[in-house]
Amino acid sequence: MVMGGKSALQQSAERHLWMNFSQLGYYARGKKLPVMVRGEGCYVWDEHGKRYLDGLSSLFCVNIGHGRADVAQAGADQGKQLEYFPTWSAAHPPAIRLAERIASLAPGDLNRVFFTSGGSESVDSAIKLARQYHRVTGNALKTKIIARDIAYHGTTMGALALTGIDSIKEPFAPLLPGGIHVPNTSVYRLPPDRTADSLAEAVKRRIEIEGPDTVAAVILEPVQTAGGCYMPPPGYFARVREICDEHNVLMISDEVICAWGRLGEWFGCERFGYIPDIITTAKGLTSAYAPMGAVIARDAVAEPFLNGDTSFLHGFTFAGHPMSAAIALANIDVFEREDLLDHVRHNQDGFRAMLESLRDIPIVGDVRGTGYFHAVELVRDQDTKEPFSPEDQVSLLGYLSDELQERGLIFRADDRGGPVVQLAPPLIAGPAQFNEMEELLRPVLHKASELFPHAR
Amino acid sequence: MVMGGKSALQQSAERHLWMNFSQLGYYARGKKLPVMVRGEGCYVWDEHGKRYLDGLSSLFCVNIGHGRADVAQAGADQGKQLEYFPTWSAAHPPAIRLAERIASLAPGDLNRVFFTSGGSESVDSAIKLARQYHRVTGNALKTKIIARDIAYHGTTMGALALTGIDSIKEPFAPLLPGGIHVPNTSVYRLPPDRTADSLAEAVKRRIEIEGPDTVAAVILEPVQTAGGCYMPPPGYFARVREICDEHNVLMISDEVICAWGRLGEWFGCERFGYIPDIITTAKGLTSAYAPMGAVIARDAVAEPFLNGDTSFLHGFTFAGHPMSAAIALANIDVFEREDLLDHVRHNQDGFRAMLESLRDIPIVGDVRGTGYFHAVELVRDQDTKEPFSPEDQVSLLGYLSDELQERGLIFRADDRGGPVVQLAPPLIAGPAQFNEMEELLRPVLHKASELFPHAR
Repeated sequence: MVMGGKSALQQSAERHLWMNFSQLGYYARGKKLPVMVRGEGCYVWDEHGKRYLDGLSSLFCVNIGHGRADVAQAGADQGKQLEYFPTWSAAHPPAIRLAERIASLAPGDLNRVFFTSGGSESVDSAIKLARQYHRVTGNALKTKIIARDIAYHGTTMGALALTGIDSIKEPFAPLLPGGIHVPNTSVYRLPPDRTADSLAEAVKRRIEIEGPDTVAAVILEPVQTAGGCYMPPPGYFARVREICDEHNVLMISDEVICAWGRLGEWFGCERFGYIPDIITTAKGLTSAYAPMGAVIARDAVAEPFLNGDTSFLHGFTFAGHPMSAAIALANIDVFEREDLLDHVRHNQDGFRAMLESLRDIPIVGDVRGTGYFHAVELVRDQDTKEPFSPEDQVSLLGYLSDELQERGLIFRADDRGGPVVQLAPPLIAGPAQFNEMEELLRPVLHKASELFPHAR
Repeated sequence: MVMGGKSALQQSAERHLWMNFSQLGYYARGKKLPVMVRGEGCYVWDEHGKRYLDGLSSLFCVNIGHGRADVAQAGADQGKQLEYFPTWSAAHPPAIRLAERIASLAPGDLNRVFFTSGGSESVDSAIKLARQYHRVTGNALKTKIIARDIAYHGTTMGALALTGIDSIKEPFAPLLPGGIHVPNTSVYRLPPDRTADSLAEAVKRRIEIEGPDTVAAVILEPVQTAGGCYMPPPGYFARVREICDEHNVLMISDEVICAWGRLGEWFGCERFGYIPDIITTAKGLTSAYAPMGAVIARDAVAEPFLNGDTSFLHGFTFAGHPMSAAIALANIDVFEREDLLDHVRHNQDGFRAMLESLRDIPIVGDVRGTGYFHAVELVRDQDTKEPFSPEDQVSLLGYLSDELQERGLIFRADDRGGPVVQLAPPLIAGPAQFNEMEELLRPVLHKASELFPHAR
């Protein structure tokens, strides 16, 4: 039902729903709120029947694609047996089986799983684990966590302190003490005084400046999401691993996005050949068919908590929720049954080639990423990498968002580094979807090249 | 399958599952881990077929009782249409309808709903909302939040700073700055220099000491859970409301436990006749059939975020998850169809009378609470209220936990104030379950009276 140009659902949303990171006033002033009602495979449909190609797995999370009735049903089937019981001094089969299965998939001796309900909770839990680990092993001063500039690690107060985006932190100060930031791996825009090889050394230098006895952990995404899929230079993670070992600093791989096939592997760290001490994950763990996250720890990190009456003094009511765990297991079944990792490995070059082909558009400056996780950075000048002015960047991203929403492409217009078009399709996407993406992107980027002054 | 006295599930759990607030070493040294496999109504069964009376709604959350196939199925049915889409610059019918429904049930002008995946996320979100609210209304220094001693508000880094239990905070320092604590309403053990009437004034005094210009909010549960169902003295909340208004301090009612019928009302604040500025909730919102929480704000709190391009710079991937929202709606349907609030109001006196009848046991010192939320505090001397020694308290609670687990009663042995037996049955419980509780509790408490020295 449409009233005054807006449906009853849109009107109710504007009155009662506090949307995430959304300027509510925009809707009040007439901006259209898309109300999604159905999903299938790589596509979603809004209340007016309009179809969208989901080029972002909704929010980097619907990895197996939309509308899998069997995965949704797995939650209800579990719920009819046991819909809920805590994992506080008790357990239930779905949480146990899922912990075992995650341990079997995770690299090395990452064998112990603490469940959460999402990525922010996973990161907060990893902070607490790192701090209590050092405390019970006699290093109580090791409390600081090193993260990277512009990195997004979540929005609970712990995760937020690690997030390196000032604009979303500043209104909430004073923040949790101990979040320290070092340069990220934006090799496309290295400052003149820095080389790709110096980036890992910046972690070492920061640990030394802070004092190794005060640093608990380093947290890094395999590919940094915010800023637009910053790839690590060769040797980066191996060197960070060495530095962490040298200074008894835990290495946390934040794989809320980069696990579960996003980079063509179960875990993002495998793509780059390192073994962290702790993995934080969420999103693709259930392909977002249920809220769930996890913290996966090496045996050596769990070991001090197996002695005497020491316990990790932490927990969430919904940790390991039976229905969420059943859905995660069904999700992993889909991965295995359809060999989605293999599908990504075979199709990632086609996805990349399509994006590379956009370089003939004058404002396409960089194409980067790996697997099904890529970003296109837009620039004023391809040769000099001259960025758009801040005002033009805002207008450009606004234009792309509106235009591509209108044409039916879900993507991310990221403004946290340079202006970036980010794409992370469901892992079932293939050449047909890549062609469709190009058909949607190319004319809009061309038009943007005409609207926004550029150097050619 | 049982191997070496432990089932395969128990062994796998001990190897891979990091349970919440649990001493993992205890299981390695032989303690039995209950593995729950089925639930129905007020009962759950473990893997060996043993039945337990769920006297705690599992963890204060399975309010409609276990095994409701229709509620579990509501999640899957939604999932077959649209299993997930974010509420970041978009929305979907289940989140919109649930926000509207919550607004219609919440008191006063609490009309705006921000969704989360659980109680800790709700409290972290309320902290952020309170701080940004004051910042955008020109009071940037208002960042401190006042909570109460021994209160439990959650475990993410924001919520943890408000939690008033030192033992679960200390390993994770340095904590978020700005968590300030005042006395709780343990009127059973008022210090000699304090009266029940002085408890609200302690909030006022603390605001004045901190400086009213630095205080963003006060957070309180309608009935404080930790410590054992501390009830507010008459007039307490009305006075706190006045004090908050006087000093432009937001009043946050933390109803993660006390909403959704626990106290015989939709929201706990209604039980005591006050209207907060913000309600944080979770648990009973879905009766734990899905992970979900919410922050409900008054129109006046949302208003500054409706202007210009101001936005609440906060969000969670799983906020308003379609399947969780569909389950919450089905859960509320059950409340209405079976008039569970009325059921609680009609049966709460019987529950209370059963607990009061235990006062003939020499170690029963206090019985307190309201609705389906009560605690029995155990003492060495009923007349003088002399507490057990710290060592005896630990042993006593250990004895009660082991003995009642053996006999099949799920309850909470709380040690955060005095030793407390806490009970919060599903809202469908009635005289049969109260009788059964008494049959389980009475002999064990009697035996405990014999084992632990007391004054009679």
